[in-house]
Amino acid sequence: MIRAEIITIGDEILYGQITDTNTQWISAELDKIGIRTVRKSSVGDTEEAILQIFQEATDRADLVIVTGGLGPTKDDITKKTFCKYFNTTLEVHQEALTDLTEFFRKRGREVTGLNLGQAELPANATYIKNTMGTAPGMWFEQNGVVYISMPGVPYEMKGLMTLSLLPKIQEYFKTPVIFHKVIRTVGIGESLLAEMIDAWEDALPPHIKLAYLPSMGSVKLRLTGFGEDIKALEKEVEDKFEKVLPIIKDYVYGFGNEELEEAIGRLLKEKGYTVSTAESCTGGYLGHQFTKVAGSSAYFMGGIISYDNAVKINQLGVKAETLAQFGAVSEETVIEMSENIRKLCQTTFGLATSGIAGPDGGTTDKPVGTIWIAIASETQTITKKLQLGGFREQNIHLTAINILNLLRTTWL
Amino acid sequence: MIRAEIITIGDEILYGQITDTNTQWISAELDKIGIRTVRKSSVGDTEEAILQIFQEATDRADLVIVTGGLGPTKDDITKKTFCKYFNTTLEVHQEALTDLTEFFRKRGREVTGLNLGQAELPANATYIKNTMGTAPGMWFEQNGVVYISMPGVPYEMKGLMTLSLLPKIQEYFKTPVIFHKVIRTVGIGESLLAEMIDAWEDALPPHIKLAYLPSMGSVKLRLTGFGEDIKALEKEVEDKFEKVLPIIKDYVYGFGNEELEEAIGRLLKEKGYTVSTAESCTGGYLGHQFTKVAGSSAYFMGGIISYDNAVKINQLGVKAETLAQFGAVSEETVIEMSENIRKLCQTTFGLATSGIAGPDGGTTDKPVGTIWIAIASETQTITKKLQLGGFREQNIHLTAINILNLLRTTWL
Repeated sequence: MIRAEIITIGDEILYGQITDTNTQWISAELDKIGIRTVRKSSVGDTEEAILQIFQEATDRADLVIVTGGLGPTKDDITKKTFCKYFNTTLEVHQEALTDLTEFFRKRGREVTGLNLGQAELPANATYIKNTMGTAPGMWFEQNGVVYISMPGVPYEMKGLMTLSLLPKIQEYFKTPVIFHKVIRTVGIGESLLAEMIDAWEDALPPHIKLAYLPSMGSVKLRLTGFGEDIKALEKEVEDKFEKVLPIIKDYVYGFGNEELEEAIGRLLKEKGYTVSTAESCTGGYLGHQFTKVAGSSAYFMGGIISYDNAVKINQLGVKAETLAQFGAVSEETVIEMSENIRKLCQTTFGLATSGIAGPDGGTTDKPVGTIWIAIASETQTITKKLQLGGFREQNIHLTAINILNLLRTTWL
Repeated sequence: MIRAEIITIGDEILYGQITDTNTQWISAELDKIGIRTVRKSSVGDTEEAILQIFQEATDRADLVIVTGGLGPTKDDITKKTFCKYFNTTLEVHQEALTDLTEFFRKRGREVTGLNLGQAELPANATYIKNTMGTAPGMWFEQNGVVYISMPGVPYEMKGLMTLSLLPKIQEYFKTPVIFHKVIRTVGIGESLLAEMIDAWEDALPPHIKLAYLPSMGSVKLRLTGFGEDIKALEKEVEDKFEKVLPIIKDYVYGFGNEELEEAIGRLLKEKGYTVSTAESCTGGYLGHQFTKVAGSSAYFMGGIISYDNAVKINQLGVKAETLAQFGAVSEETVIEMSENIRKLCQTTFGLATSGIAGPDGGTTDKPVGTIWIAIASETQTITKKLQLGGFREQNIHLTAINILNLLRTTWL
């Protein structure tokens, strides 16, 4: 198996000043093409530290991927250190210079002194064009080890990897034929899911691997098959897949890269349904889950954030008596909220949330994390009581996930 | 300066299946007490890889912090590898066993076989109690190097660090006296900010350092003073601070750990103001910015997410002619939205957003990223046009930041 090592260069990451999202993304992409990451490291902006990690990585890996340290300022010393490591010098690369000049020209600017240096590459580098920025990607080969250098800006790095480097890596290393299938679940925890599919998982052949990828409120299952013939492999993985699907079908909302809110959006659009929201404890977060998806105006009409009871009564038409008798966090209130918002916005469904997000506001009867959700359709209104935990952000997020999933399982 | 190395153990992180948030948090905490992280590494769940990184780290650092690999399942081999590294064996630790039993008893459970093993520690370990989970923290000393081992679960790790380990580290290493002051800015980029305070920064004495901590839409400035006498140091840092504040005061919204939405909330509460929101392009995200803050019901009354024009007209009372003549993304529309929501919810201020979040829906006149915001008060309505970029999530986030900052600079 091809072994990779990922190196991040930069004091900002080392001292915890910025979040490194690149390393995870790169290792996940490598994993998908059957390359095993054996070490991830962050080092500072010093020649000594960089040379040391280059040497170590060379001893461990077939592929060394380096991000960061390519900006035009004096702190960024990756290129000079590559020169020292490969015992070579920086030279102006004509293609890089042309692309750089063009990049600036398109933005109505001239290439200035500091930026001109970005067209200088170590003499042994293969130039990899960066369409989204000024620091080029580079590819080096020495003693059977490949070194890749990219800027640390995430969208530039991702552009370079996706457009140029991942295909080049696959070709160079003749990586095995790989087929992935991702099943996305919601409404069940990782360990319960694992128990349900235990027997099926144990029966997987050695060349088909299962990975659990959990996040708050959902779990992805990824089946990865390794082989030589893509057609045969695809069929084999799909067969396994067909066997596990009936066992967990209640929890499966989609496949591949589709997020829950995207899957819901797709289903709403397909069926010609529309939705509106009446939010109390989620305070706009549920609306945001719908509207963060591009094209959501096709099915999301709008909503009312009825945080204060006056807004529940005046804008949403919840009866004052209901609030007085049962409280804002009650089945009776969310029923009215969901039915009223549905009528006001003239949508197929009206979704409502009301609960105690915390950390304060809990009582013995209704502790923090007590949340009611409701969905009204033309013919019926369904409700559900959630008993979540003590963390505000988590309660808000899980309430949104729960009501989206209730919509999915009941009507989509 | 004390050098630290942070090691994360676990295949899930190495293969990019889960996000490692621990490493950044630990390095930021170490930075605050004057300990320099010199390397961060992730390695897999194999004895060979763990022993190798232990040896490397020992050669480079005074303090080696290890997270992960402490769970009760067979994959978690950190403790056994520590034994091998220190040439010792696992022994039942009585205090650990008592705490473990008590932990389970409180939850109405018995300690079972697999979990019993969690009370076994390498014989040379100092036991560090984990109040939030079952895997204890450990402290080792050998040849002048300190090794710390913690579980990878973030809130357990943070609990161990905050309650026990950071104080112990400070005491053991006699770290210098340190005083921090964080200034939080919004509405200005890192490089412009740096230019404004260039002369002030250059005049800082060597024992007072400035760090720029940027995130999307805002930049934190952290002043760190190193010294021996806390009183004198505090005064010195505060003096520097008083000098820079007038230069950048228009951009400063708060200090310390306070986020923008928290600062706005605090100011609204102090002044007895209330707010409501009428959101189009932000689709609930602005409401969420207010309501994610605990206690926001004191000043956030509610809002209308008027995604569809019908909702703008029927619920929000925007004139159909205004929409027809100027379009939904126009100054005229956001003025009506902000003034109407203010009246409907009877709040001090009404905030409105309408724009083209993208990626589709742009025109030559109004390309993606064209966004109008407005805030209505009793006496005046102010508006602002934003020209943001092509990324939907970024546009939504930056619109919220911009309108919060407009509220702050105009009225708070």
